[in-house]
Amino acid sequence: MSDQEKELQVLRDQIDQIDQQLQTLLNQRAACAQQVAEVKQKYQGSRDAVFYRPEREAQVLRRVMERNTGPLPERDVARLFREVMSACLALEQPMRIAFLGPEGTFTQQAAVKHFGLSAITAPLASLDEVFREVEAGTAHYGVVPIENTSEGMVNHTLHLFSRFRLSIVGEVELNIHHHLLVRPTIDRNAVTRIYATQSALSQCRSWLDAHYPSVERVAVATNADAARQASIETDVGLAAAIGSELAIELYPLQVAVRNIEDQAESSSRFLILGCQDVGPSGHDKTSILVCAHDKPGALYDLLAPFRLRGISLTRIETRTLSGPWSSVFYIDFEGHVSDAPVQALFKDLEAESLELKLLGSYPQAVL
Amino acid sequence: MSDQEKELQVLRDQIDQIDQQLQTLLNQRAACAQQVAEVKQKYQGSRDAVFYRPEREAQVLRRVMERNTGPLPERDVARLFREVMSACLALEQPMRIAFLGPEGTFTQQAAVKHFGLSAITAPLASLDEVFREVEAGTAHYGVVPIENTSEGMVNHTLHLFSRFRLSIVGEVELNIHHHLLVRPTIDRNAVTRIYATQSALSQCRSWLDAHYPSVERVAVATNADAARQASIETDVGLAAAIGSELAIELYPLQVAVRNIEDQAESSSRFLILGCQDVGPSGHDKTSILVCAHDKPGALYDLLAPFRLRGISLTRIETRTLSGPWSSVFYIDFEGHVSDAPVQALFKDLEAESLELKLLGSYPQAVL
Repeated sequence: MSDQEKELQVLRDQIDQIDQQLQTLLNQRAACAQQVAEVKQKYQGSRDAVFYRPEREAQVLRRVMERNTGPLPERDVARLFREVMSACLALEQPMRIAFLGPEGTFTQQAAVKHFGLSAITAPLASLDEVFREVEAGTAHYGVVPIENTSEGMVNHTLHLFSRFRLSIVGEVELNIHHHLLVRPTIDRNAVTRIYATQSALSQCRSWLDAHYPSVERVAVATNADAARQASIETDVGLAAAIGSELAIELYPLQVAVRNIEDQAESSSRFLILGCQDVGPSGHDKTSILVCAHDKPGALYDLLAPFRLRGISLTRIETRTLSGPWSSVFYIDFEGHVSDAPVQALFKDLEAESLELKLLGSYPQAVL
Repeated sequence: MSDQEKELQVLRDQIDQIDQQLQTLLNQRAACAQQVAEVKQKYQGSRDAVFYRPEREAQVLRRVMERNTGPLPERDVARLFREVMSACLALEQPMRIAFLGPEGTFTQQAAVKHFGLSAITAPLASLDEVFREVEAGTAHYGVVPIENTSEGMVNHTLHLFSRFRLSIVGEVELNIHHHLLVRPTIDRNAVTRIYATQSALSQCRSWLDAHYPSVERVAVATNADAARQASIETDVGLAAAIGSELAIELYPLQVAVRNIEDQAESSSRFLILGCQDVGPSGHDKTSILVCAHDKPGALYDLLAPFRLRGISLTRIETRTLSGPWSSVFYIDFEGHVSDAPVQALFKDLEAESLELKLLGSYPQAVL
């Protein structure tokens, strides 16, 4: 055995020892998770027992990241724990997750990021279907896009909350940068057509207007379609695509111009829909819809209680309706519906005779 | 605190304890993996060091499955270890894996099954491109489909082995059953059109000929396309799709007829391509191409040495060519090129003046 082989053998023996301990612990953890399920069934009955607890999962992941000493990066080790929890949960109840399809979109990426590989993810053709499947119990949870920095709230999603009795039980954030991508042989000044999703085109509109004012823009269904089109189209003209780092790894394209999005960081947010109330995790968000009469100072009346109670708003969106309730405000703020200041806030808002709908309290995105 | 809460608290404290130990061990394992990389770089130089060792990974996974006591199923615990190894490897060298695209196909599923989530998978438009990217080093490994039970070897893949200097470094198996899928409201006898991939249509040909002789068959690119089409097409006629269990989870379809494939179990096999020789793992396969003169008894001459050396053939495929080497046999057999009987076999074949090309020795699929 060579010196190298000897040194490697020592290390591999160590790894084998570690793996044995890891395996024992993984099975111990699964056995504990089974006992948790048994306790829940004993007290709640097997129909009503809720196995997935978003607040508990968020706490576990935060602790994992806080105490991590490396060399594995925080995010990798948290991702491994996500998978461990996903496998333990699947022992009791394999999770079916509906998302707004098609496959290969950022929404699917968000679903896998949140629920892990042991969950079964199901692409559906419309937002309505996602809400319907979750309400009917065909899927345990749903994942829908709710905003990105430049397009704002997805109107239709908000509207659906009034038609279905679902809560927001979590959020997922994905950071997305846009680049102009071309084949290595192409001069970017000669480009005659740019492929991108509607969302990417809108997020890069100012940049495109400034740099490619007269170039054809073609909206396609997914980022993958855009990159594929730009990578194969050689006859009809010189095509480029707008895409992410991912696309460069996936297609024979290179970045011609980096970060062409109109705002510095474009992050997309997704909501997890479910039929349960989520307890406090320590770092939570609450989403509400508030209807206000169309009168001067309506927005001021609405915001005063937040300031009074020291509650931080993270997002506010206004929608104008017809009828006596002429404005609807969608509001995200920090805190949980069970916190005393939030309960006081709700009393204040009701005293202003504002109509209020709680969409959900849920853990802030951990990863 | 209620009785239920008290019982749950005890269990959750146990889980937290286990998680802390798991995390410590995961980081210890990653540190050991880093030391392995350092040893390799010290002896082999940083350019030549090979970080991914398929034989070693196969051994680890086999041990994990052998010693598993549950409650986590063998396959789940092996999948977790695949992810742990994938994350440890990514610390040293994030793996880029090229596969025959598009995304969402079984080939991508095979790539993720083999390399884990920490690998970057890149869909390419053609088999040639996959071979080219791996030979050029742009991708570390490639994944291509090589056979399924009824369609036989993918000819083109075999042909490419003569053009590129690549080896087979691993195999992946996926079990695939085909079902006839329809929307819940549809009578399966009223179906007027069936969507499926070319491969699924060919694997179910006899059944389709017997049961739907005059119904239109439409070939689409992916299984997802087929299911989506059948799930949304309501106006133009009554559509069905051929698909897997996966499709039922993913689309609002139900199984009208189960297991319609012409052979009882349809399993698809995929090859991992690389530029390295793989050492013996204990349970290996070897793939070779043998050219034979077109003379009576050529196949007999070819097979005799296998019987003589007690070597089990797992697959043989014949291709007819023009010219003096009129037949090419693709052969898979059990054993590793470093085993004495295999070396004796190669001498026998050369003595028969048969032209022989070793495609690779690699671990048999573990999962």
